[in-house]
Amino acid sequence: MSADELVREAASRAHAAHPALLAAAPEALDAALTAAADLVERERGTLLDANAEDVAAARASSTASAMVDRLVLDEQRLLSLAGALRDLAALPHPPAGTPIRDLPEGLVVVERRVPVGVVGATYEARPNVTLDVASQLVKSRNAGVLRTGGAALRSAQAIVDRVVAPALAAAGLDREVIQLVRTADRAAAVALVSHPDLVPLVVVRGSGETTRALGREAARHGTRVLAHADGGGVLYAHRSADPATLQRLLRAGLDRLGVCNRLNLLLVDEGAWDSTVPAVTSVLADLGVTTSLPPHAHRLGHEWALDEGREATVTVAAVSGGPAAAARLADRETSGIAATVCAEDAAAAREFLAAWTGTGGFWNATTRLLDGAKLLGAPETGINVDRVPGPRGPVTFRDLALRQFVVAPRDVPFDWR
Amino acid sequence: MSADELVREAASRAHAAHPALLAAAPEALDAALTAAADLVERERGTLLDANAEDVAAARASSTASAMVDRLVLDEQRLLSLAGALRDLAALPHPPAGTPIRDLPEGLVVVERRVPVGVVGATYEARPNVTLDVASQLVKSRNAGVLRTGGAALRSAQAIVDRVVAPALAAAGLDREVIQLVRTADRAAAVALVSHPDLVPLVVVRGSGETTRALGREAARHGTRVLAHADGGGVLYAHRSADPATLQRLLRAGLDRLGVCNRLNLLLVDEGAWDSTVPAVTSVLADLGVTTSLPPHAHRLGHEWALDEGREATVTVAAVSGGPAAAARLADRETSGIAATVCAEDAAAAREFLAAWTGTGGFWNATTRLLDGAKLLGAPETGINVDRVPGPRGPVTFRDLALRQFVVAPRDVPFDWR
Repeated sequence: MSADELVREAASRAHAAHPALLAAAPEALDAALTAAADLVERERGTLLDANAEDVAAARASSTASAMVDRLVLDEQRLLSLAGALRDLAALPHPPAGTPIRDLPEGLVVVERRVPVGVVGATYEARPNVTLDVASQLVKSRNAGVLRTGGAALRSAQAIVDRVVAPALAAAGLDREVIQLVRTADRAAAVALVSHPDLVPLVVVRGSGETTRALGREAARHGTRVLAHADGGGVLYAHRSADPATLQRLLRAGLDRLGVCNRLNLLLVDEGAWDSTVPAVTSVLADLGVTTSLPPHAHRLGHEWALDEGREATVTVAAVSGGPAAAARLADRETSGIAATVCAEDAAAAREFLAAWTGTGGFWNATTRLLDGAKLLGAPETGINVDRVPGPRGPVTFRDLALRQFVVAPRDVPFDWR
Repeated sequence: MSADELVREAASRAHAAHPALLAAAPEALDAALTAAADLVERERGTLLDANAEDVAAARASSTASAMVDRLVLDEQRLLSLAGALRDLAALPHPPAGTPIRDLPEGLVVVERRVPVGVVGATYEARPNVTLDVASQLVKSRNAGVLRTGGAALRSAQAIVDRVVAPALAAAGLDREVIQLVRTADRAAAVALVSHPDLVPLVVVRGSGETTRALGREAARHGTRVLAHADGGGVLYAHRSADPATLQRLLRAGLDRLGVCNRLNLLLVDEGAWDSTVPAVTSVLADLGVTTSLPPHAHRLGHEWALDEGREATVTVAAVSGGPAAAARLADRETSGIAATVCAEDAAAAREFLAAWTGTGGFWNATTRLLDGAKLLGAPETGINVDRVPGPRGPVTFRDLALRQFVVAPRDVPFDWR
């Protein structure tokens, strides 16, 4: 079968299995997650064997060592995956229905959350993501079609066949709910975003040109994508910034260099340029990070995390016109993923945050907090940076729902599952 | 200038004017709406004159009389528009920021609503919609680019120039915030959905093939559209339905025939077919409505409201397998706009509503309630039927916002405008 046929077949199976999931009790969903945690532990030999084959094949084909690193499962990572499943099982389910308004004749309007149905996910060759996404879909009552980077296909198959499917079955749910597209063919990613009638929503993990191209392809077909092809955190140092706080934010924003919410662009309040830049340069040098000072030979928002070999760089630029102008500049020049204002002056912080329209705004706190677990206490399905209403910023299982209004008699209790 | 250039120019002006709107106090927004209501009354002579020119031109070009009807403004309609503006001004603003979680180190996470920025709207030649949409955009702090059907262009210009712009100025806001695309060229509608960098979100009013084609065009460019090309309410008559309730729902569902949420498809519980259909046929005949009985020469969800000359028809079909099967059939065969279950048996009603994933579900209440004003007490910007997270069903000014997470010190009070 072609990649497209495989995707369509997987989507049809997921569709067929979904009604039973829709009708399941919340306890059954959480029981499936707990069963999956047990199975990760019990089946870890099988999982590690399958993963070892992936890793050997990747090494044999001279895959970059950073990619191999992300591919490797070990005992420790498996245990932490099992822990994450138990944590997710313990999280409360959002209310399925919330009464919002009384109507005449004894009626009430209830705003209800309906699962999307079949949600797609495509991601790089990281075995943990298969389990991550599968568990979040189950928790949110969605069926799923998962597509992993080919290098992790054996690991993903083992995870779905030995953990996810039997865990669903153990909880009395349909094991077909979570489908893996069983091909290493990259065309499967394109196919997944090409059938909105079967898969209306696709989480696209990863960043850079591959993600950007998938986003364009999805748009062409009318598939909604949750993605962030581009990231890059901004830090605006206001003239009222406390030097120690600024130093702390620089360090916290650069604890990892390959991530989308790291410090990428430092905007320095024009009036404070001379007093700020030497200290900044020295802290960055201490971290082994180069400062790209004006005049810049690149776009102001150029994302260093995606610039292989030059990840250890931060752009530094002066900005005039005060906090609102700085926020608008950050909005215009970056993907809008996250920005921090470093200021002791509360009015300046307010002015910056009021004008900033990106997905996360931080006052004297690092953009690295833009993360589902850190911000919201729930693992993130992905990060979305589009500028339309709907899930934006860190997307969690709570966001994978459709809005529905129900009108019913006020005096009849309903279980709005 | 071409239609495309006009749209891009209007969007640029709206963009340039938006920051001041973003910074305005809620009271200023409501003052602009109240000023607009006063101006509708004060300028009614001018508005009626401009409208009379549109109407005369439409009549001269032999426009269908139903279309001319929708084009006509009169004293009464203007007064009711002024009333609607005052009602909107009186509605509370949704909280701009809601604290959702405490973080360590004295920080709090606030979920904040950020206006979209520049929102587009394209609609048929109905002068009232210009005022409707403009006022909702102002209330939600969004700038706008409006495009009306060409037959109402003079009326729309008078509304924008004599009411909207001076009302904004009177409230100390930038009159450029609401832009009208001043051309009757239909290409302007396509242009409006073709520049997501300038106008990321477009409300497309109206239904049928024009809307469907605009939706496809928007998707191709990556513009998010809020629209419902297709409608058609469903009524499922369970075997436990009370005949008097069923009759009431039939009548209520057919009080108007040209609207998207009217009764279009009646699904009759197989076991109750013989006892139900004669009564239904007689009620419908009394209303002058034809029943399309099986075997059907059309798709089950065929929308009669869009079938010129045959609007007074309702499809009637038997459905087996119980309430959940009926809900799934309705989901599959219709746009999912709205469905009613008519049942005395609460378990049957629950089963139907639990399986129905459309935008509105009703128990012994008419699908005609699927309307912003009736359901939510706020005028609707449009109705959206897509199957992805975000505003769905009746969309109101409250929905025209982006999600943003802000992290700030817990002990510093913020005005999250």
